[in-house]
This record gives sequence, C-alpha cells and structure tokens, in this order.
Amino acid sequence: MAKAGKKLLDQINYPKDLKKISEDDLIQVCAELRQEIIDQVSCNPGHFGASLGVVELTVALHYVLNTPYDNLVWDVGHQAYGHKILTGRKDVFHTNRKYKGISGFPNRNESEYDAFTVGHSSTSISAALGMAVAAHLNGELDRKTVAVIGDGSMTAGLAFEGLNNAANKNADLLVILNDNNMAIDPNVGGLNEYLLDITTSQTYNKVKNDVWRLLGKFNRLNPNTQKLFQKVEHGIKTILLRQSNIFEALNFRYFGPVDGHNVNHLVKVLSDLQKIPGPKLLHCITQKGKGFKQAELHQTYWHAPGKFDKVTGEIFKQETSEPQASKFQDVFGNTLVELAEMNDKIVGITPAMPTGSSLNIMMAKMPDRAFDVGIAEQHAVTFSGGLAAKGKVPFCAIYSSFMQRAYDQVIHDVALQNVNVVFCLDRGGVVGADGATHHGVYDLAFMRCVPNMTIAAPLNEIELRNLMFTAQQEDMGPFSIRYPRGRGRIIDWKKEFTILPVGKGQQLKDGTDLVILSIGAIGIEAMDAIEELEKDNISVGHYDMRYLKPIDTELLQEVCSKFKHIITLEDASIIGGLGSAVMEFINDQDYHCKVTRLGVPDKWVEQGTQQELYKECGYDKDGIIKTVVEILAEQIN
Amino acid sequence: MAKAGKKLLDQINYPKDLKKISEDDLIQVCAELRQEIIDQVSCNPGHFGASLGVVELTVALHYVLNTPYDNLVWDVGHQAYGHKILTGRKDVFHTNRKYKGISGFPNRNESEYDAFTVGHSSTSISAALGMAVAAHLNGELDRKTVAVIGDGSMTAGLAFEGLNNAANKNADLLVILNDNNMAIDPNVGGLNEYLLDITTSQTYNKVKNDVWRLLGKFNRLNPNTQKLFQKVEHGIKTILLRQSNIFEALNFRYFGPVDGHNVNHLVKVLSDLQKIPGPKLLHCITQKGKGFKQAELHQTYWHAPGKFDKVTGEIFKQETSEPQASKFQDVFGNTLVELAEMNDKIVGITPAMPTGSSLNIMMAKMPDRAFDVGIAEQHAVTFSGGLAAKGKVPFCAIYSSFMQRAYDQVIHDVALQNVNVVFCLDRGGVVGADGATHHGVYDLAFMRCVPNMTIAAPLNEIELRNLMFTAQQEDMGPFSIRYPRGRGRIIDWKKEFTILPVGKGQQLKDGTDLVILSIGAIGIEAMDAIEELEKDNISVGHYDMRYLKPIDTELLQEVCSKFKHIITLEDASIIGGLGSAVMEFINDQDYHCKVTRLGVPDKWVEQGTQQELYKECGYDKDGIIKTVVEILAEQIN
Repeated sequence: MAKAGKKLLDQINYPKDLKKISEDDLIQVCAELRQEIIDQVSCNPGHFGASLGVVELTVALHYVLNTPYDNLVWDVGHQAYGHKILTGRKDVFHTNRKYKGISGFPNRNESEYDAFTVGHSSTSISAALGMAVAAHLNGELDRKTVAVIGDGSMTAGLAFEGLNNAANKNADLLVILNDNNMAIDPNVGGLNEYLLDITTSQTYNKVKNDVWRLLGKFNRLNPNTQKLFQKVEHGIKTILLRQSNIFEALNFRYFGPVDGHNVNHLVKVLSDLQKIPGPKLLHCITQKGKGFKQAELHQTYWHAPGKFDKVTGEIFKQETSEPQASKFQDVFGNTLVELAEMNDKIVGITPAMPTGSSLNIMMAKMPDRAFDVGIAEQHAVTFSGGLAAKGKVPFCAIYSSFMQRAYDQVIHDVALQNVNVVFCLDRGGVVGADGATHHGVYDLAFMRCVPNMTIAAPLNEIELRNLMFTAQQEDMGPFSIRYPRGRGRIIDWKKEFTILPVGKGQQLKDGTDLVILSIGAIGIEAMDAIEELEKDNISVGHYDMRYLKPIDTELLQEVCSKFKHIITLEDASIIGGLGSAVMEFINDQDYHCKVTRLGVPDKWVEQGTQQELYKECGYDKDGIIKTVVEILAEQIN
Repeated sequence: MAKAGKKLLDQINYPKDLKKISEDDLIQVCAELRQEIIDQVSCNPGHFGASLGVVELTVALHYVLNTPYDNLVWDVGHQAYGHKILTGRKDVFHTNRKYKGISGFPNRNESEYDAFTVGHSSTSISAALGMAVAAHLNGELDRKTVAVIGDGSMTAGLAFEGLNNAANKNADLLVILNDNNMAIDPNVGGLNEYLLDITTSQTYNKVKNDVWRLLGKFNRLNPNTQKLFQKVEHGIKTILLRQSNIFEALNFRYFGPVDGHNVNHLVKVLSDLQKIPGPKLLHCITQKGKGFKQAELHQTYWHAPGKFDKVTGEIFKQETSEPQASKFQDVFGNTLVELAEMNDKIVGITPAMPTGSSLNIMMAKMPDRAFDVGIAEQHAVTFSGGLAAKGKVPFCAIYSSFMQRAYDQVIHDVALQNVNVVFCLDRGGVVGADGATHHGVYDLAFMRCVPNMTIAAPLNEIELRNLMFTAQQEDMGPFSIRYPRGRGRIIDWKKEFTILPVGKGQQLKDGTDLVILSIGAIGIEAMDAIEELEKDNISVGHYDMRYLKPIDTELLQEVCSKFKHIITLEDASIIGGLGSAVMEFINDQDYHCKVTRLGVPDKWVEQGTQQELYKECGYDKDGIIKTVVEILAEQIN
C-alpha cells in the first residue's frame, strides 16, 4: 500500500515507473492522476470530462502495454491528458494548450509515446491498423497495437471504414470502444441506440423472453425439466451474444461490456486480450467526467469548462465591466431561428456540434427542422444536398477544419447539383488553443476552385446576420459563409435584415498612401492598425471585400486604378485565397499593382491565443502597422 | 401476352407507359430492355455489367413507384441505363457519354426522373434521406423515397453515416441493397463477408447446429419430444434472423434476401414494402452482367468493356498499325513492383480500384504488401498514414476526383504527420466520357495550400517512373504525383531510374517570342503547338515545371527575366493551381510579366473525349496556337 502522505504519482514520470507499482496500489494511482487532472485543468483551461472518464483505462493500458514500442493511438486525443502526465509530461503539463507549450492533443513531434498526431475524430482505427500491419510485415509478432475510440467517434464513416478493413486482416489490433454515450453533446444515431441496447441487454432480454415463452409451452408438458431448460437457455444466451453482435458480424471478436472504472479488472482483461490474436474489440463502459460531480452531471457543459474552483465546482466567468459582445456562433444560432420563422423552407444541420455551433438554439425551438447528425460531416453535407434538391434551404453549420472531411460532398453533392445549401463555416481562421489540427485556414483556397460556389465572410456580427439573410434568397445556389471562433465587438447586432448584394464589397475608409483589402472579421485588426497609423499622418484606405467569390471587380478596378501597392489580409492560408484572387484580377485586367499578402504562411501553426497566433503570422494590428510602414519606407527609398 | 414480332419496349417511353403493361408481360419487357442495353453498349461503349444486373429491379421500381413524384436515387449511377431508357431517353441513348450527348450517370439537369446527380459512390442513402425528410416536413405522406445502392458502395463511410442517421428518423425511406458481391473488382472487407454470410445463411446454420446440439442432449432424455423441439427451433430461427441482423441492429427493418432477377416477385415485394413506414432495407441478390454470358463470367472485365460483338461477345481491340504506348496507370503499376522489389518498405494501397489503377499487378506479385481496401478513400489515406508513421512507404493510388473524399485525411493524417506517403493521383485532369463528376481538376488547387506537401506531375511515362523513384527516397515526406487517364506516347519507357530533384523543372525548348510553362502530360499539347508554330517562324520557349510545389524559383527567374508574357498550361482548374502559383511568384519577386492561364475554366465541364474537352477548354494544340497568335498580335498592336 501507498505510504501515508507520499504521493505515488510523484514517483511516476514514465510508464516504466508505473510498472513498478503493485496492482493493489493502482486504485490509488488512479485517484491521484484524476486529482492531478482536476488540479491542472481547473486553473489552466482545457478539455476535462473526457480525460477524467479514461483515467483507469489510461493507467491500465500503460501498466499492461509496453509503450512506446507498442502502438497506442488515442482517437481525437482530448482524453489523453492522463496519458501525457504518465509519459514524461507531468512537469510541463501546466503549459498545456498554451503558446509554445505542449499540445492539447497527442502529437508525434512532442513525444514518442504519441504514436499518431490527432485532433479530428475517428482516425484511430485506420491509423492503428496501418501500424499493426506494419508490425506484421516486419515480423514483430510481440508488438501490440491499440486504438482507443469513443462511441461518438464511432459514428463517423472513417471509423466504419477502418473496422470494415481491420476485420479481414490478420493484424494484431485491439480496438477499445470507450462508450460513455456522449460526443461533446449526447450521441445520436442507430449505432448509439444499438450500443445502449447491448449494454442494457435489451435485445438479449427480449430474445430471452421469446425463448422462454417457447420453452415455457414445452415446460408445461414436462414439469421436471426446469434445470435442463436453464442449461439450454444459458447455451442460447452465449450463442446469441456472440452471433447477434454488430462487431462480430464485421469479423471482430467482441469482448465486454466491462466497467471502465475498475482498474484492476481492466488490467486483467487487457492482459488476457494480449494473448488473443487478430482484430478484437473491447467494449468499455465509462462515465464522462467521472470523479468530479458537476462534470458527471452536466457532461456537455464540462467538456471544456474553462477555469473553475476545483473544490466547489464553481465555473469562473470572465469578469468584465462592460457588456460583452456575442460570440459569432450565437449570432448564427439566433439569426437562424429568426430566418427559419420567416422562411419555412429553412432547416438546420450540424454534425455533432449543437452546442459548439449554437444550432442547439434552433434544435430547442424547432426540433423538427434542426438535425444533429452526429460526427458525420460527409453525411451532413450530402443530406443537405438531398434536402435542397427537394426545395428546402439547409443551413449546414460545420467548423472550417472539419469541412475538409466533406470536401467531395461539397463539390459533388451540393455545388454540382447547384442547390441552395448555405454552409456556415464556424471557426474559420486560426482557432487558438486547439492548435494545428483545428485551425480552419484552408477553406478559402479549397472552396474557391469549386464552380457555382459563393464564398463570403462577414466583417462583424451584423454582416454575418445579413449574409445569412442574403444566402436564403431564391435561387442563390451553394453559398458559403465563414466566420471566426469567438466574439466580435458589437453588442447590439440584432438589426433589421438587409441584403448584401452578392459579389459586392464595401469601402470602409478612404486613404491615399496605401490600401488594405480584407475579408472577414480579421478586418477589425486592419481598422485598429489604420486608426493608429492615422495618428502618424499615414493615410491607409480600407475595403472589406465581403465576398471572395464572385469577387467585386468594380471595387478592385477602383482600387487598382488608385493604388500601386495593395495589402490583402485574410485569416487563412496565403496560398489560393484572397491574395491569389486579387493577383489573378490584377494580372487578367492588366494592372500593375504589387500585392503584399498577409495571412497564414505555408506552415503548420501550433496553439496559442488567437491574438498570439495573429501576431506570429504577422497579421495582428502591430504586424499590419509594421507591414504598412515597411512598404511606405521602400516606396520612399 | 406480347404480340409476336412486336416489341413491348417500343410502346414504352415513360414509366406511365410501363404501368399499362400487364404484370404477365413484365418478363418480356425485361428481356427487351436487357437486349436494348446490349445493343446500345456493344456499339457505343459504356458501363455494361451493372445495368444488366438491375434490369428487373429497374422495371419493377418504375412499375410500382410513381416517379418522378416519388424520389428514386441511384447510387453511383452507372447502373442506370435501363432507368434512362425507361424515362424518356430511349431515342437519345445512342449519345450516351458522348460530347454534347446524355450523361453516363443520372443528372438532375437532364431529366426530372434523375432525382440526384451522381457519379461518385455511396451518396444515395444520405441524399435520399434528405429527400424523404423534405417530404415528411412537407406533409407529403404519399411520397416514397428509394435509394438503390450496391454492396460495393456500402463499404464507404458515407453510406454507413447515412444508414446510421436514417435509422433514428421517421422518414419513409427504402434502401435497396443491390448485392452482387462486386464493386468494379470483387468486393472486400468485413461487411462483404457478412453479406455473403447472410445470403448463404452460414451464421444461422452455425447457430442452428449449436442449438440443436444443446437441444439434442435434452432430446436424448425425452425421445418423444421431437416435434416440440422442431417448434422451438423454428421459433429460435425467427428470433435469430431478426435479431442478429446488422441492419436491424441499426434500427432498419430488414427484408430479404430476395432474387433480384424475378421481376414479378420484386413487384410484389416492392408493393408490399410501400405499406411499411419508416426506414427499411430490401436485400436484393443480383448478378452483375446478368443475361450476357461473358459478362456474367468475367465481371471486372465487363464492367465497361468497350465495343464488342453483341452475339459472340468478342471485345474489339482498337486496331493500330503501330505498337501502342502504355497507359499511365500501367506504368505506375509495373514501376511500383520494380521499386517494391528494391525497397522493402514500399507497400501499395488502392480503394477499390485494383484494375483501374493497375495496382492489381502488385497485388498478384506481392499479395502481402498490396492492399485493396474497398471503396474507402478516407481509410486508404489514414491507413497509409499509420503505415508510414511506422516506417513503411505507402504508395496510395487514388483517382484525383475521388481524392476529394480523403482531403481531411491528406491534411490531418499524412501532411501534418509529415510522413512519406506517396499519393499517386491517377485520372488527374479531364477524364473524358465519365464527365463532370469524374474530372480530376481540383487537386492542384486543393493540394497546393497544404503545408509539407510536394506536388509533382510527369510530362510522360518516363518521368512518372522517375518521380515514383524520387518520391520513395529517405525523408521525402508527403509526396503527390498526378497523371492523366489514358496513354502517353512513349513505347519504351522502362529506362533506368533517375532522381528528378524536388522543386526543379526543365527547359524543353528555347524560344524568343513567348514562353509556355506547363505542368504534367498536357505539356505534350504545347510541344505539338510549338512545333506547328515554328513552321510560321514563331519561336515559343517551353518549360516543364514538373513540380508545382516547391516551385522552381530559379527557372521562374530565368523565364521572368527573359519574357514579358507567360502562358501557363495545366490540365486542371485555372483557379489556385499553376497559373496562380506563377502569378504569386511574379508578384512577390517584383517581376512585371503578364500571365495567360490555360486550363479548365471556372465551370462544370461535361463528358466528351479528352481531346474534345481540351478543345472546349481552349488548351488543345489548336487552342494553344490560337492563344499564342493572339498574344503576339496584341503585342504588335
């Protein structure tokens, strides 16, 4: 047993240290690890509920496996805080999700214990299968591969493709289904109901009753055979559980369900499973937020709660003396309800982000017309295409970086059909603490080459509202609106709706020395910069393009006639987006302006606050000022 | 009965005509429709086996459904020839897949009977669910929605997402699983084995044996209870078939399997199913190529056989006096084996295109190292990422247009991991008869914004070979090679391997008047144009960029110093690809050259031969000559 007053966790920096702990003490290790996560996340915000839910699983896995030789792949990875703490990162965990700190997700560059860099869901089975096949080809028969995937992630097509392919391989792969009945929001779909059904044994009970009824008739004729009937029933139960299982149907050996909070039992089960070759699935029942009462009770809220009091569970609100502006997502969520009340063709779709996108507002008010389709971006888009083909106007809200997963569906099932689906790309631009996997910086480039697609980005909350109003007009076709994570500055954004003519931008400021063309809310940084520059009598013009496609050619003509040098500003990759579009215009129209492109350079940007990342990329207020000053200095020289 | 000598099909132009036919005559209609398809496709090449396999299903569906009011969505759509013939397009069917003719796939622009434009697989369930939900919201309780999907398409994640979502909706949706055990090549994966298992009742038989064994022990004690045992067994059978079904597990009502070639039975079953609300699946067993012996026997070969003798089944080879160059895909397929023999890290991956990509060559020679993962592009890429994370060098062969479906995986599971996966994007550029859904024209744009990604395109077969050789060198990272559908011109391409330095292009021709920068095999058109122009003493320089990223800046400096006007040539969208990259360079390096971009304009290009489409887009030899002449004329004026 652990000595009083001394923490076991203090002795554990790597899995090799954990392995020295006696099995009897693992419960204590789990308690300490859980408390460590609570201590850390309460003052340094991050994902919370998911990591608490897998504390026992994490300890058991590192106790049994020989990591990093064995491959351990966490799906999504926001549940891997315990894993990070046990694999050499306890002392730097206070830098989690911070600028220049450690990533909030497993990352191959950070640790050899992170077998795969993750962030998006449902990649683990396919990636782990690749690793298991590599080990198999190398003849490394002792090398184990484990994927840990939540039931929410299991609804994505990629996970199904992985399962379907693992099934007919000899690779030694263990998939652990971490079943807590939740994504960020409650999980949905047929598979979810099925998993509930297995765990509550409803199917089995139903079958058992049917069998008993049959046997019962028999029974009446032979009252002495009760005991034998029980044997028969037991045999049928075994057969049924084996045969009626969806994973077994796909050729996986299915084990469980087991209690995911009994660390000693998990150690035993995982050790036993090491001896079983081929593809196998362990169904593990856990509770999101386990061990922190408020997080157990309000799982969506405590997915990533921000700072909180680790004793009382009180969540600290940011104190501000001024009234706070709304988040862009809430402007979306509220405006959509307003529009849907006026236009009964409108429906709302989100893939598993009702809270994150604020579609939950419509889901509460108009449950028949708002659809959470689970983690299934591809389906979200094609489903929208089907709805629109029959006259509906779907507002399909997907984070920019997750839209990458539905690119073919955007092209093939919406743009090619030329139907009026409105894509609301939340989290467009750098997103902050979630880092490289979550920045939504490619959408301007990958959308711009798609025929029929209108691409817009609002400068502020009111424009978001009016773009949404514009997008649902008759015959608008495919329409994409991207807006950033977080808040703008306008408190009172609920103005009367106005149409923002497609392909028309606006002049925000007249200027003489230089000009900035911006798209989206990052234009605010330019406005701040221009204000500052004015104090030094530098006069910079500013145009908000509003639409990337079709681009405002009249506006560009005006600008190109007046200015020799143009700065383009976008919270997106500088390859293929606004800067490229402006250059194409200048070239095609025979202007001779020089363009300086401000945006995300051609590299991976890691985590930090949005402001830190704007700065790193050189397009925060100061970066813009610096760019303007340098260009003007060059012109003088 | 049909009158002798008179064809029933002559009387049928629309489903309303079909409905006038007596049920007794439907077999005759099917025979005539099948013959019509054979007659048409034998002289006008297209997809063959798939449409023959669904003749009875097509007739039964249009007999029972009230199309186009009812929504009938064909998955992929290459099986919809019978549907087209029965819905107003019999007389124009000879234009199938031809330039300005009808599309080889259902197309919303072509007919109101084509509920959804298709071409890529596995979209039908999601799209149909959208339509069914639209009908439900509109209160159109009589409007039926049917999706017809093959077992091959069912392996894609999108189909699973659709099923999973349909399961918990009240929408009136019938999914018909057209189970012929094939994609283009034989189907693979756990689901495939499961479907075989249902249809051959292996699971049930196994369970039955187990149950009998149990009951048997019982039996020995009570020899008089045989009859009762049979009752029990029957009851268990019913329960098992209901409960152990994977679709039932997902909340679909499962019906079948039924014989998909018994039209009268299909009419009855479909009529009965009309009365059953909610999501339901009819499992229909068909034979690809049904009714044409050779096509039944060699299903992959007869997927799209080209011209053939409709009586003897002899396939007509194109007669040429000269020896024919290889297809690019075969250069890929053969070279991969050569490389894999030298580098044991190399593995090959294809999502359901072993024949189309020629990975079948490696699959035959090195079955352990070549993987057909079924229609599952996402998995193909993430699986490759996992293999590469553990030191393998996967060559992942995916058609350019299908790569759209794995875009997130390219970014998140390969480029971000910075591992050496070699993407071989076959069918890059316009592909010809398959039309808008299949042209691979966005890859240069959507790949270019991805950090870490090397992007190359070979001018010819030898360069493809050498790019593949280059890509598998140590530490190359993510590497993408795109090449076109069809053949080049080089017969003798099996030369010794040479490294083509990354980021370096080549001068093909010196010139003085103008310059063309091309990427990929479309450069051949430029070479032809330049040769022709030379006859008129017009001297055009020509550079093959070879790499789009990193782009050859030295080469560009040389070109920009020498020429005022540059033509860029790419078999890809003019938005975001080579033309944009060159403009970005010119701008950033302060050159003042004008660029004329030749490539696919910002619109959907329909079907035709590749040459017809190059011409339509203005970048065939004549288009290039015209552009050169126009530019030079302008310069003079």
